[in-house]
Amino acid sequence: MVLRTGEEYVNAIRHRNKVEIYVMGKEVKDVTEHPFLKPSVLAFKATYDAAHEEDSESLARAWSSFINEEVNRFTHIHRSPEDLAAKVKLLRKISHKTGACFQRCVGWDALNAIYVTSRLMAERGKKEYYERFVEYLKYVQKNDVALAGAMTDVKGIRTLRPHEQPHAYLRVTQVTKDGIYVSGAKANITGIGAAEEIVVMPTRAMSEKDMDFAVAFSIPLDTEGIKVIIGRQVNDGRRLEEGEIDGLPYRTNHEGLVIFDNVFVPMERVFMLGDWQMSGILVEIFSSYHRQGYGGCKSGLGDVIIGAAYNLAKQIGVEKAPHIQNKLNEMVLLNENMYGSGIAASLDAVKLCEDGCWWVNPMFANVTKQLVTRFPYEITKFSTDIAGGIIGTAPSEWDLKNPKLKPYIEKYLQGMMDYSTEDRLRMVRLLENVGFSVAFLIESVHGAGSPEAQRIAINRVYDYEYAEKIAKYLSQIEKRIDFKENAEPWRKTDTEKIASSG
Amino acid sequence: MVLRTGEEYVNAIRHRNKVEIYVMGKEVKDVTEHPFLKPSVLAFKATYDAAHEEDSESLARAWSSFINEEVNRFTHIHRSPEDLAAKVKLLRKISHKTGACFQRCVGWDALNAIYVTSRLMAERGKKEYYERFVEYLKYVQKNDVALAGAMTDVKGIRTLRPHEQPHAYLRVTQVTKDGIYVSGAKANITGIGAAEEIVVMPTRAMSEKDMDFAVAFSIPLDTEGIKVIIGRQVNDGRRLEEGEIDGLPYRTNHEGLVIFDNVFVPMERVFMLGDWQMSGILVEIFSSYHRQGYGGCKSGLGDVIIGAAYNLAKQIGVEKAPHIQNKLNEMVLLNENMYGSGIAASLDAVKLCEDGCWWVNPMFANVTKQLVTRFPYEITKFSTDIAGGIIGTAPSEWDLKNPKLKPYIEKYLQGMMDYSTEDRLRMVRLLENVGFSVAFLIESVHGAGSPEAQRIAINRVYDYEYAEKIAKYLSQIEKRIDFKENAEPWRKTDTEKIASSG
Amino acid sequence: MVLRTGEEYVNAIRHRNKVEIYVMGKEVKDVTEHPFLKPSVLAFKATYDAAHEEDSESLARAWSSFINEEVNRFTHIHRSPEDLAAKVKLLRKISHKTGACFQRCVGWDALNAIYVTSRLMAERGKKEYYERFVEYLKYVQKNDVALAGAMTDVKGIRTLRPHEQPHAYLRVTQVTKDGIYVSGAKANITGIGAAEEIVVMPTRAMSEKDMDFAVAFSIPLDTEGIKVIIGRQVNDGRRLEEGEIDGLPYRTNHEGLVIFDNVFVPMERVFMLGDWQMSGILVEIFSSYHRQGYGGCKSGLGDVIIGAAYNLAKQIGVEKAPHIQNKLNEMVLLNENMYGSGIAASLDAVKLCEDGCWWVNPMFANVTKQLVTRFPYEITKFSTDIAGGIIGTAPSEWDLKNPKLKPYIEKYLQGMMDYSTEDRLRMVRLLENVGFSVAFLIESVHGAGSPEAQRIAINRVYDYEYAEKIAKYLSQIEKRIDFKENAEPWRKTDTEKIASSG
Amino acid sequence: MVLRTGEEYVNAIRHRNKVEIYVMGKEVKDVTEHPFLKPSVLAFKATYDAAHEEDSESLARAWSSFINEEVNRFTHIHRSPEDLAAKVKLLRKISHKTGACFQRCVGWDALNAIYVTSRLMAERGKKEYYERFVEYLKYVQKNDVALAGAMTDVKGIRTLRPHEQPHAYLRVTQVTKDGIYVSGAKANITGIGAAEEIVVMPTRAMSEKDMDFAVAFSIPLDTEGIKVIIGRQVNDGRRLEEGEIDGLPYRTNHEGLVIFDNVFVPMERVFMLGDWQMSGILVEIFSSYHRQGYGGCKSGLGDVIIGAAYNLAKQIGVEKAPHIQNKLNEMVLLNENMYGSGIAASLDAVKLCEDGCWWVNPMFANVTKQLVTRFPYEITKFSTDIAGGIIGTAPSEWDLKNPKLKPYIEKYLQGMMDYSTEDRLRMVRLLENVGFSVAFLIESVHGAGSPEAQRIAINRVYDYEYAEKIAKYLSQIEKRIDFKENAEPWRKTDTEKIASSG
Repeated sequence: MVLRTGEEYVNAIRHRNKVEIYVMGKEVKDVTEHPFLKPSVLAFKATYDAAHEEDSESLARAWSSFINEEVNRFTHIHRSPEDLAAKVKLLRKISHKTGACFQRCVGWDALNAIYVTSRLMAERGKKEYYERFVEYLKYVQKNDVALAGAMTDVKGIRTLRPHEQPHAYLRVTQVTKDGIYVSGAKANITGIGAAEEIVVMPTRAMSEKDMDFAVAFSIPLDTEGIKVIIGRQVNDGRRLEEGEIDGLPYRTNHEGLVIFDNVFVPMERVFMLGDWQMSGILVEIFSSYHRQGYGGCKSGLGDVIIGAAYNLAKQIGVEKAPHIQNKLNEMVLLNENMYGSGIAASLDAVKLCEDGCWWVNPMFANVTKQLVTRFPYEITKFSTDIAGGIIGTAPSEWDLKNPKLKPYIEKYLQGMMDYSTEDRLRMVRLLENVGFSVAFLIESVHGAGSPEAQRIAINRVYDYEYAEKIAKYLSQIEKRIDFKENAEPWRKTDTEKIASSG
Repeated sequence: MVLRTGEEYVNAIRHRNKVEIYVMGKEVKDVTEHPFLKPSVLAFKATYDAAHEEDSESLARAWSSFINEEVNRFTHIHRSPEDLAAKVKLLRKISHKTGACFQRCVGWDALNAIYVTSRLMAERGKKEYYERFVEYLKYVQKNDVALAGAMTDVKGIRTLRPHEQPHAYLRVTQVTKDGIYVSGAKANITGIGAAEEIVVMPTRAMSEKDMDFAVAFSIPLDTEGIKVIIGRQVNDGRRLEEGEIDGLPYRTNHEGLVIFDNVFVPMERVFMLGDWQMSGILVEIFSSYHRQGYGGCKSGLGDVIIGAAYNLAKQIGVEKAPHIQNKLNEMVLLNENMYGSGIAASLDAVKLCEDGCWWVNPMFANVTKQLVTRFPYEITKFSTDIAGGIIGTAPSEWDLKNPKLKPYIEKYLQGMMDYSTEDRLRMVRLLENVGFSVAFLIESVHGAGSPEAQRIAINRVYDYEYAEKIAKYLSQIEKRIDFKENAEPWRKTDTEKIASSG
Repeated sequence: MVLRTGEEYVNAIRHRNKVEIYVMGKEVKDVTEHPFLKPSVLAFKATYDAAHEEDSESLARAWSSFINEEVNRFTHIHRSPEDLAAKVKLLRKISHKTGACFQRCVGWDALNAIYVTSRLMAERGKKEYYERFVEYLKYVQKNDVALAGAMTDVKGIRTLRPHEQPHAYLRVTQVTKDGIYVSGAKANITGIGAAEEIVVMPTRAMSEKDMDFAVAFSIPLDTEGIKVIIGRQVNDGRRLEEGEIDGLPYRTNHEGLVIFDNVFVPMERVFMLGDWQMSGILVEIFSSYHRQGYGGCKSGLGDVIIGAAYNLAKQIGVEKAPHIQNKLNEMVLLNENMYGSGIAASLDAVKLCEDGCWWVNPMFANVTKQLVTRFPYEITKFSTDIAGGIIGTAPSEWDLKNPKLKPYIEKYLQGMMDYSTEDRLRMVRLLENVGFSVAFLIESVHGAGSPEAQRIAINRVYDYEYAEKIAKYLSQIEKRIDFKENAEPWRKTDTEKIASSG
Repeated sequence: MVLRTGEEYVNAIRHRNKVEIYVMGKEVKDVTEHPFLKPSVLAFKATYDAAHEEDSESLARAWSSFINEEVNRFTHIHRSPEDLAAKVKLLRKISHKTGACFQRCVGWDALNAIYVTSRLMAERGKKEYYERFVEYLKYVQKNDVALAGAMTDVKGIRTLRPHEQPHAYLRVTQVTKDGIYVSGAKANITGIGAAEEIVVMPTRAMSEKDMDFAVAFSIPLDTEGIKVIIGRQVNDGRRLEEGEIDGLPYRTNHEGLVIFDNVFVPMERVFMLGDWQMSGILVEIFSSYHRQGYGGCKSGLGDVIIGAAYNLAKQIGVEKAPHIQNKLNEMVLLNENMYGSGIAASLDAVKLCEDGCWWVNPMFANVTKQLVTRFPYEITKFSTDIAGGIIGTAPSEWDLKNPKLKPYIEKYLQGMMDYSTEDRLRMVRLLENVGFSVAFLIESVHGAGSPEAQRIAINRVYDYEYAEKIAKYLSQIEKRIDFKENAEPWRKTDTEKIASSG
């Protein structure tokens, strides 16, 4: 089953054992047919299709030395900077096929983060996690499993630590020989309804008192005790309509609140248990992987928006106007800046273990995500400007289909003759559905950590003391300086950095 | 009927003669009960209620020297800079009561713009327009009529002028002794479905060949030949639900495409006819009035968003965190900058005729609107940041009401004990419904003219040649300079400016 | 001597008693002839000339009800919002005559701030300060005295309060029947070398333990024990050259460190003594006045820069290029935004006492200054862009004057034939000297309080709780709301605000 | 002489044949001792020293396959993406040693650009240029020659092409068997006074009529007919003082106007002659190399400024204040964004010929430079904010050295006891000299092409039509799409791109 097709994936989640998923208060029978979730399933599916489509298959496949077979890259452990860059390129490319977040990155980044962390734990003498994880990884790769990743706890009052408000963080309530029992909830879990399994990680650095919360594992979604409540999104009403222009054809993503009510996890699926010192490190490693990826997927959505704005400008004959050109240019600059940062985070990667654990460059990964928290709102604003007021006032497809109204709409919304009025409405709706989507705006702010998290990370990686030393030398406050020998002395080395977050 | 109550207004539009309004392809029976339009009606209604509510009545009423009675300010002709400032303050205040655009400003600004323009035409010897208009104004004031204003034509291919694509601009097809016949369409007409009458203006400066398009008039919405197609908005699906948290309780606005199919306008309602030289002037005067107003209504929505973000920060105990404080502070700065510009545009007003036609300061009005095209996206971005990921992932009210899910949601989404989980959902939904609304984002970009229009206007008002003269003097390229005597020599005088746009 | 001419002023400071002023380590004999200070004297002088020049005299004069004569506005106590607006307009205008900070505003704002504060103290029963101050004011107005204002203490370690590091704040060391003795230093004192007297104010809110530091007074600069060390500025070397293009002709400002070494102040010149509760209020009132003014003088310098950039674009024939137009337009927008905020701070003023103490609107004054901390760097950046690389590489005037080089320079730096190469160099130097001046860049950041000070002030004036109340009402967390009755409920009232800073 | 020491370089330019260099109208005898130029020579020298200093030698050396020896990297032809990244890292590192532009990059980028272009010409059949160039390259590498690069012509009226105003572009006036004669001038030539030879390139794409202007060559600076007029810079007066704090110790750069008055160039030094079709390509290739480099040197200066601001914050005890932390963080973000873009431009390089001509990624190189045109002004603004007003008002070193003033200055400017007052002044001066330098501000805007040039380049590389195709597919205007197979379909391929600029 290595390299499943999209259809195989859809069939698998259609026929899986009963999972308990709720949308707008009602339990969902079949996510693949539910109007709220189907657009998500189709976006997720694109990650499978990509491995079979001519233009993307070389990027979407990778060779696994664990199972000695070609696997879908979304289950691959990065083996080189080029692997990391291939990730960013692939994400940008699939965005073009979906116009939406395809939701499979969190699970992928979780695999890589746990791989590295368990390696580090193994190097420190605790080998069982690594061994278990590699077995699990082989299973995932062989079966091309659809994974969600779950990190964010509900967190309650932000100033309290886990042990001060136990309900607010997922915790281990019992440990037996065979496994562990966990209770709590994970919030904002992307693509959860379209996944087969969920990889769970802790959400923050822990102290010794928080030991019960330092837990990582994986579990199928149909495990007893798991409930999923799908969250609402701006403009989600469109999915519930039966049209073909205003909302339905667009793919989308979803996030869910996942409740663990005394859920049993067999020990072979437990990848961290009580190792509170490693919790922050796992978070750090995961976050940087995930932040890097945003340079790909968000610039991919940026392309969709640029393309839509450009087309709408053409439809009314203004694409050559200097101010339109200027705005398009600025959109591209912002978009390529996000992407280029992701590429730098990839190709200037950090080797964390001898035989090749490649981590992203933590500075550039955090810069990437910080840009992503800012630029999409700018890009959407420029696209609004270029599209014209029609982006907020266009008639519905039902108006166009009403024979009494159709001739008027066709007459009055016609622009250049190369395009029909239906073309115009379709493009306006694409721009509205992508430009104002949770995936492009809200997720860009909060996914992979809220903006402040990146700022803290940047502050930890940059060596202010070294910069000060330079300034003291140049101002001759100090007459000589020992310039650091390493190639990038302005950067704290990774070990120091990781240690500091523990 | 002077100073109608909100209820009187609602009853009036409920019982008016048949108007032909379409929403999502179907004709609307009663706008006051239609789920898509009712939130708009309630927002419009707030402009009537404001004149009867203790906190706002002094701002919401004004003395009309035309009918020697107190009138609703939304029908008032500005008589002083203080009147103009009262407008901005009133708009900010009503925004707090609606959390939405209340849609009555366009008609109001149309009244003032036609008043000034017809005065100017009268001064140039053509008195009939002014006389007709004052009669109409008295009728509007006495009956506290709900007006929409219509300027924007559909415009087709933007590089062609009206006479080159006649269908793209509203035009006069026939003139009789008793009146005129018009055909065409007006687009993006705010609040049209909730209005009783529509005041129509031309959309741009015209040349002699465009004479048929230089027309201004007023007409009841139930006039034969008028059809209205209401446009869709981001997140509009929420209105169609029957809930009480996720969408319904929030007020909103709407825009519509208004079709004029050989509509007869009696001559006493015609305020401009073929005066192509005055067309650009009317547009200019109207636009600046409308741009000034945005300093009030958009900062009012800004307050709602700041308040919601502040409350959500409190709900999770982070309102004192420096980075949260910093972002709130930045939101206030942006918000007050928009508002302060609107106040400057008001109090530093321009007198256009001897006995008191007060026009806004055209520089500051354009600066105001230009800021409004930029800051709301920033404000919404900051509010997204402060609110946390929940803004894109919160469960629906239907989940909260499902007894199986309610205990989980209450447990896991609880923050500080001062607030219930329902409080949290309500506040998240308010922020979503306002922060990502067409009124706050898209309308801020395009209402009262797209961003480029203000830039052109700013360029016309600022005297670059004078600035250059200063620079030549200071660099001693020229040894002396005749500094202009007037108080603000960096500004072209209004007359020059208006002329240049004709 | 009311309404001195510029020449009278220059003569007065040329012939004053010995003052102890140092520039670059050497004592200055005559500030009016010293190459480092003369450009400052000429800029200061412009405030006197303005009252006698046709284009500015109506703005530059005001009627004093204290002495019943027309006075130079720079000594005037504001009596109306229009007075406040006249200040902003005057400052913009004089900037055009100097291309530099003219340094007389601090003293002027000090007069107004002490006037208001001593009034408030009088209302609270302590009348002597007010009475003394009015006598002093009459003297200043009658003699059109050149005042510097001094607020900023050297402050040492910023986390310590005055009584914890007494040397870091000016303090009273002895009080006698006839007067007081003070020691300490005031830093960053604008125009001090060109002033006749110095008005001293405390620099921050104080606690009871800081009583000795709560002191305000005025004293001639030639008082025994005062030493002034003039500070250096970016590009100050140009002043020391004897040329006529590269540096000399440009006016400038200066700041100085003023040392008080056991200086005696006669009691009739003491306007606050130990009133620690009022110290913060005086600071607040002064700062807002000063922040408002920046909307005028900095936009005036902005005009100079816009004019210079526009001219340089013309000199090489690109002033119509869309991207040049776009940048000029953006510069104007930024400039008018600063100015408009200052105008709003003026015309939407606050009345602090019954018979007319007019204070600026504290929100808009702080917004103005916050914009001023940001936009000049933007404006200079755009002007650099438009000017071309020549702004950093142009030959010196000495090259142009070298007959061997002159023909080459004239051949190769020639642009459009309307301008000579000397014109080009002159304009480049103007732009360099103004665009990169301390007055436009550094003073814009720190004058009237560093950026954080305005942010704190904005946070104190904006009523977050009211904004939250609105949000609670609109989200129906609270079913009803008592909207505040006053016209601007989003604003804390002045009394509350001032109290909070005490 | 391969791998000269800094001292060898200085001796070489001290003793070279007479070159004709003018500073402020006077001819310079010895650039190594001239106060205006010595700081430049010291900065240039750092590029030689770097190859002998422990911390930098591995970056600063590279293996030349042309001469089979280790060469100074500043003469190296890039052989891999890693070589390109080493360039960016080296530039950042040397900036730390100089606090200034070290001026050797233009010549280096010229070598690489001519190498690639002559290769392309050779592939098209014209081999002589390539052969000549390789000979020249060997000479440069063996002798570690100090090169300046000269591209920018004086350009006169920007709307005219070379053949329409021949004096405004360097041109070939005569071709003989042995060589060519050229006349004209090159402007803004960085480091020219400290270089031994000058590599000349054309400045823009040419048409057939501009054939005489399509010329590239190299020539020693002491060739007859060459005159250099050194340009002035903001704050250049400081260099002329004999102090040790305020100006002198800081290194700097310079630019000059280079006049070619009928200069003979021997044919073996001619690398392009009349190949107008290749002129634009050479410009394009050079510019992208040079734009990439700015990611290194400007972020290096950014480090100096961050370090200085951080130290100044420490000196007054505020480095932990949240708003200071926030600003430092923002500076780092901007700085690392510039750097990371340069790294992406390097590691995601483009191979232009089979055996390894590595060109930078043209999109990321242009993004890098575009960021560099914007961020330094931001960084300097933040540093001004953190440094406090003292950055514009600090006493001179001559005041500190005056025994009458020293005790006062030491008392009143003292901050934390870890630092002396002299330390404070030194750090303030470093920040002033670097933060407001031509190298950090003006050169960042105009070096390697003005901002508009990058915008045009970005527009040429980004494939808007492909983005539109995606949008049409996703909106279902077109039912299917041929996704491009290449890894980055959103990018026009290099060949297309280069062609389009020809």
